[in-house]
Amino acid sequence: MTHLAAEGALDTVPIGTFTTEAGATIPGAQIAYQRWGTPLPDHSNVLVVEHALTGDSRVDQWWGELLGPGRALDTRRYCVISTNVLGGCQGSTGPSSPHPDSSRPDSQAWGSRFPALSIRDQVHAERLFLRALGITRVHAVMGGSMGGARTLEWAALYPHALRAAGVFAVSARASAWQIGIQSAQIAAVENDPHWHGGDYYATGQAPLGGLATARRIAHLTYRGELELDERFGTSAQEGENPCGAFRSPHQRFAVESYLDYQAEKLARRFDAGSYVTLTDALNRHDIGRGRGGLNKALAAIGTPTFVAGVDTDILYPYHQQEHLSRNLGNLLGMAKIVSPVGHDAFLAETRQMDRIIRSFLDRAAALP
Amino acid sequence: MTHLAAEGALDTVPIGTFTTEAGATIPGAQIAYQRWGTPLPDHSNVLVVEHALTGDSRVDQWWGELLGPGRALDTRRYCVISTNVLGGCQGSTGPSSPHPDSSRPDSQAWGSRFPALSIRDQVHAERLFLRALGITRVHAVMGGSMGGARTLEWAALYPHALRAAGVFAVSARASAWQIGIQSAQIAAVENDPHWHGGDYYATGQAPLGGLATARRIAHLTYRGELELDERFGTSAQEGENPCGAFRSPHQRFAVESYLDYQAEKLARRFDAGSYVTLTDALNRHDIGRGRGGLNKALAAIGTPTFVAGVDTDILYPYHQQEHLSRNLGNLLGMAKIVSPVGHDAFLAETRQMDRIIRSFLDRAAALP
Repeated sequence: MTHLAAEGALDTVPIGTFTTEAGATIPGAQIAYQRWGTPLPDHSNVLVVEHALTGDSRVDQWWGELLGPGRALDTRRYCVISTNVLGGCQGSTGPSSPHPDSSRPDSQAWGSRFPALSIRDQVHAERLFLRALGITRVHAVMGGSMGGARTLEWAALYPHALRAAGVFAVSARASAWQIGIQSAQIAAVENDPHWHGGDYYATGQAPLGGLATARRIAHLTYRGELELDERFGTSAQEGENPCGAFRSPHQRFAVESYLDYQAEKLARRFDAGSYVTLTDALNRHDIGRGRGGLNKALAAIGTPTFVAGVDTDILYPYHQQEHLSRNLGNLLGMAKIVSPVGHDAFLAETRQMDRIIRSFLDRAAALP
Repeated sequence: MTHLAAEGALDTVPIGTFTTEAGATIPGAQIAYQRWGTPLPDHSNVLVVEHALTGDSRVDQWWGELLGPGRALDTRRYCVISTNVLGGCQGSTGPSSPHPDSSRPDSQAWGSRFPALSIRDQVHAERLFLRALGITRVHAVMGGSMGGARTLEWAALYPHALRAAGVFAVSARASAWQIGIQSAQIAAVENDPHWHGGDYYATGQAPLGGLATARRIAHLTYRGELELDERFGTSAQEGENPCGAFRSPHQRFAVESYLDYQAEKLARRFDAGSYVTLTDALNRHDIGRGRGGLNKALAAIGTPTFVAGVDTDILYPYHQQEHLSRNLGNLLGMAKIVSPVGHDAFLAETRQMDRIIRSFLDRAAALP
């Protein structure tokens, strides 16, 4: 097999000219990845772990307590591989990557020339990446949220390439509510005067205000209202007075300051073009498209699939995971994450996720 | 008593110089109102009906099936009075109203000079309005959402001015989640380049894009995800392709087109300055402020109060109405609106609201 990156180190793999489901092309595409643990020669111990919207290949950061020797993602037993998604901004080709045709004077980045992607495109790119490494079949693919959507498409697109799938906190397709709230986030970025139709990379300014607005909205869909209220309630931010005689953006409630902090943190580390591209891909998520409808498509998935959801998730409500579990062709198991945290519980509730991932991998290992 | 407006006709009542809770003043303030039915000489049959955020005094439009002879708001028995809230844009003084000092050359509207308002300020202004009409005590005050917040403050501020209160689909105070999502809406308006710090009235352009973005977000908090999904799912808007090779704001899912329509409809009829002022007032809603905390303040409310909530409300979840019912000093009754519609069910579920309002008024009439 191809030489793998050193344990934990970020590396990139070229996948050639990539053609999207809708017919656009991305010449010279590459996928960034990291790996932990050692693969068996037949790759039968490889776990592909898929990140969520603004995540990346650094599983050791966002599932850090679940990764390592003796942990649920046990690196003594398994080789964990995680990519940065196509369209992302942490090493894989995305809107902020240099365009291969550098003749355009105003920008060297893809910008508005970067095509729209579907979740299927993301999985197709990852399939090409694994093949470039010489890997044609892995033990399992798993992930939550957008990572769960990719995992589900792995099971639908390439059933022979994985033994089992772990799908957490996601649905069989985008719901109208998700499309609505995600489109509002896209609009917030696009309405920023620094967006320039997506071609802001050479301007020296980024649509950080719009991205921050999008993240504030998104964060409220990731977090349960009970948890937020217990933490912040109607408290004023220290030294500020949100109930003064005149309203001011600088006189905030504590929860506003918290959301501002989360938004600024994201705006510093994440590209607005990638945010729009990946959010749009979530809008396009639909297991049923071109496969005879949702339930027919789910029934046709023979890959043993484990499903988990969060009881307080308002973005991907638990009934959507129940729908998956009732309609998937080969349900390996089902678990409910019980938490006040909301959607993000698949990242935050480490103790429960440890149990769920172990249960999933145990069942996958016991498959005939 | 003062001469009342003709049945159903919009009229205005001056309330003099208004001083806000936080100490700002609004000289020459006025309150617009409508009434239906005939008041008894002692006003003991007057019902004050309070509108929600973007509503106004036209109860015949937003609770039309509940208002009239023989209906729940029976105009043969009751005199229904509804104001436009202070800070609004349908006849009462608000940011778009002419400023009494016309010397400022760039704008004749209040704009950024209009002070912040609390829910208590809104109620105080309405109290002054009723007194200007010679009305010191009414049979009941009722309303949903922001109208429910005003109703609750009526009961807390002026217990001798009403016999009973009907509080629907609201909470004892803003939750952190509400403040978060409402602040995101305020930011969307403020980030519109046509906002001009609130002083856009003389520019010939309004921050309609920002207001539309705010409304799209708001609408998703007013509507249940199941209802939206049953209506729209992942359907494309007719003649558009949201899954094409390149993303475009003009290639939309059906739910995006629906939200765009709702947003444009609001932007045509509602002032952005009022939207910001009233949304900020909702952020400030806190029955406990300055009253020894939330539950002490609720326990001190002796006004018989009827509470109703919606089982699928994500903006004011039902547990918030349960909290009210457990802590109010004098609970008159409790009802659950069962609906897939979400928060807006207090407007949309006419049959259930008919039953709830009749139940509330029957209990209020039976009070000793």
